[in-house]
Amino acid sequence: MMDYRKPEGIDAQLLQSFMEQVSAFGCTGDGGVDRPALTDDHAAARNWFRAELENRGYRVLIDDIGNVFGHIDCAGPEAPLVMLGSHLDSQPKGGRFDGAYGVVAALAAVETLRAQASRQGEMPACNYIIADWMNEEGARFQPSLMGSSVFAGLLDRDFAHGRCDRDGRRVRDELTRCGVMGGDTAPRPDCYLEVHIEGDSKMEKSGARIAPFIRFWGAAKLRIEVTGEQNHTGPTPMSERRDAVFGAALVVTRLRELAGTAKDTLHTSVGRMDISPNSPNIVPGRAELFAELRAPEPETLEWAEAELRHSLPQLAQKADVGIEIIAVEHRPAGRFDSRLVSLCETAATAFGYPTMRLDTIAGHDAVALSAIVPSIVFAVPSVNGVIHRHDEYTSPEDLTAGGDVLLDMVRRIDRAGGSLDKAVGGT
Amino acid sequence: MMDYRKPEGIDAQLLQSFMEQVSAFGCTGDGGVDRPALTDDHAAARNWFRAELENRGYRVLIDDIGNVFGHIDCAGPEAPLVMLGSHLDSQPKGGRFDGAYGVVAALAAVETLRAQASRQGEMPACNYIIADWMNEEGARFQPSLMGSSVFAGLLDRDFAHGRCDRDGRRVRDELTRCGVMGGDTAPRPDCYLEVHIEGDSKMEKSGARIAPFIRFWGAAKLRIEVTGEQNHTGPTPMSERRDAVFGAALVVTRLRELAGTAKDTLHTSVGRMDISPNSPNIVPGRAELFAELRAPEPETLEWAEAELRHSLPQLAQKADVGIEIIAVEHRPAGRFDSRLVSLCETAATAFGYPTMRLDTIAGHDAVALSAIVPSIVFAVPSVNGVIHRHDEYTSPEDLTAGGDVLLDMVRRIDRAGGSLDKAVGGT
Repeated sequence: MMDYRKPEGIDAQLLQSFMEQVSAFGCTGDGGVDRPALTDDHAAARNWFRAELENRGYRVLIDDIGNVFGHIDCAGPEAPLVMLGSHLDSQPKGGRFDGAYGVVAALAAVETLRAQASRQGEMPACNYIIADWMNEEGARFQPSLMGSSVFAGLLDRDFAHGRCDRDGRRVRDELTRCGVMGGDTAPRPDCYLEVHIEGDSKMEKSGARIAPFIRFWGAAKLRIEVTGEQNHTGPTPMSERRDAVFGAALVVTRLRELAGTAKDTLHTSVGRMDISPNSPNIVPGRAELFAELRAPEPETLEWAEAELRHSLPQLAQKADVGIEIIAVEHRPAGRFDSRLVSLCETAATAFGYPTMRLDTIAGHDAVALSAIVPSIVFAVPSVNGVIHRHDEYTSPEDLTAGGDVLLDMVRRIDRAGGSLDKAVGGT
Repeated sequence: MMDYRKPEGIDAQLLQSFMEQVSAFGCTGDGGVDRPALTDDHAAARNWFRAELENRGYRVLIDDIGNVFGHIDCAGPEAPLVMLGSHLDSQPKGGRFDGAYGVVAALAAVETLRAQASRQGEMPACNYIIADWMNEEGARFQPSLMGSSVFAGLLDRDFAHGRCDRDGRRVRDELTRCGVMGGDTAPRPDCYLEVHIEGDSKMEKSGARIAPFIRFWGAAKLRIEVTGEQNHTGPTPMSERRDAVFGAALVVTRLRELAGTAKDTLHTSVGRMDISPNSPNIVPGRAELFAELRAPEPETLEWAEAELRHSLPQLAQKADVGIEIIAVEHRPAGRFDSRLVSLCETAATAFGYPTMRLDTIAGHDAVALSAIVPSIVFAVPSVNGVIHRHDEYTSPEDLTAGGDVLLDMVRRIDRAGGSLDKAVGGT
């Protein structure tokens, strides 16, 4: 029997209160937060969230890559398990919505579900787990999606433990320092749901308020080392210079050319460049570039990486430097669970929120989770498509809309006894 | 009456001992030192040198830009004053000879002169002052030649006091912290002599062991700000990116093109680039470039700077960023005192050291001093022309040769009662 009433929405006050509280950690005073993984501010945000979970009766589990889980048993040990989550780490000088919104919306959704069930004298049919993934951003430690990738078996835990930040501090030691080197094993859920803000202005332009992601773009993340020779910027003759920054500039330009050739089917960037010794009157001896290639089609990505590799020897010769790719991380392209996409659209439509389908080009923890369970991430708009910046902003109304849809998806799955097929059927 | 005997040389053991002692401060373990201005290691090196001066009877004066002077009164208050010196600060990860050699050779030369005079029952006819200039390198605080430029009246003291390093620490505070915010005024000398290692392989190739510098190249040092828009490297469409690192790469490449056009009459570089936020998956919002143009002829320098300025709007348009020159420092080209050049060659020839004349492209404290008194800097070779790098190296024999020539120049000036004209006349 169809229900023509508008579904009951999320506890918007609770969601708003969570957002305000979490935004205080690493607050930069200009609307943004600076909360890279395993910094003091990140640890403080997680401790606050952990206290919220415990105060609400969730059992907290911490695994050995620092993922924090809040588990609530509503329906007994045999019941299906639904996981919701995102991440509390941010980019340096980043925004307050990216990641944090998904975590607090997850808790607010499950809390609203429980409260509504309780008012009706019922119990949910599923158990729930809220995930706060460790190091989604990959700003301080690479690779990104670290916690969710280890959880999903896509990344070796010991390798992740050994990653260093630019000051040589290791993930392993920082996990211990932040009190999140746990010994728990979180159970594998039956599905995974995430809500996130979207850094593409298409959504805003089209008027959509909810956008399920259909595909995720693949990425090749390359660390490129340019080796020159450190020398004085004065007397050293130009013909004898082996200038690592000149070599690096040629690589930056080449990457941009590749994106131009591929039109909108390839995104390229160099977001970080470490120059040594980086002193005004020394010809730089070394530069390390963190380059990214992203594309929706595996063929495009392969073509672009091959083209780049092919051109490096010429660029090296032009600048008389060495250019070498010293690390590569590939994240394959793929698709989210189509039933969860439908369910997201059904839920949004029930509230009257316009939807559109999008690809996600950014990585999300849901991309890692999709390797092992039916998963989805869906988006609410960020004003002007701004993300990874202090002034990223999503209105309270849109935050509530995302929470409503997350809640309604969970409710439909719960009413279907955890079966996605039945949930989509709407029975 | 000509003296056909080989002149008595410098106390090579004393010079060598000084070199070994000073090389311990900021020692990096690979032959180099890391001793930028007003760091703890720089302060320690200067304290060691100050103790050497005091133990040998020099009166130590410290002025309000942190220059340290050792003054020895040999001939009464009316006698001419000869100044010798260089600097104890180094580049980060720099070499141990650049600067430090000139300071310790100055002290060793005057000490040898005094000892020789004493053995002959004579007193020198001039007074001497050894200068350890503050912040020649300009690695941590810009501009370079800071202490000598303030001394020579070329740079405003308050402006210099207000300069900040990349962590926002001010010269003024760091002078106080290092105990070199002095209240003394050093007297203006009648001439200034300096010996330095040379970062040009020409000397070594030609077999010259002593090279007086004739001209100093002019320099334009520009700080160029590239302003883009910080955004996510994933979803942001390429057409909407305002990538500061791409803009910076275009500037780097353009500077290199200018040098190519001007052949060997122009040197260009970007030694330092500060990128913000410099995170792998953020399109950089800002980059600041420390660019240098150097040329022996003022016209070349003017042409190059004008060409660069002319091209910046096009480069800005190509990368859709703002590009602005936010600070410029000009150091005019010029010539050292021709009498001191002759005297240097005469002294070298007396010892049988082959000479050649060079331009100096690097800045030296003697360039600043030449604005107010007859000055010279002359060079000994650095192996392979390496300078500003841990493996810069000058053999003990060449260090001694430079010391011999410095001593002999001083001796000839002293015998001529401080008159350069008479000293060159050889009477």
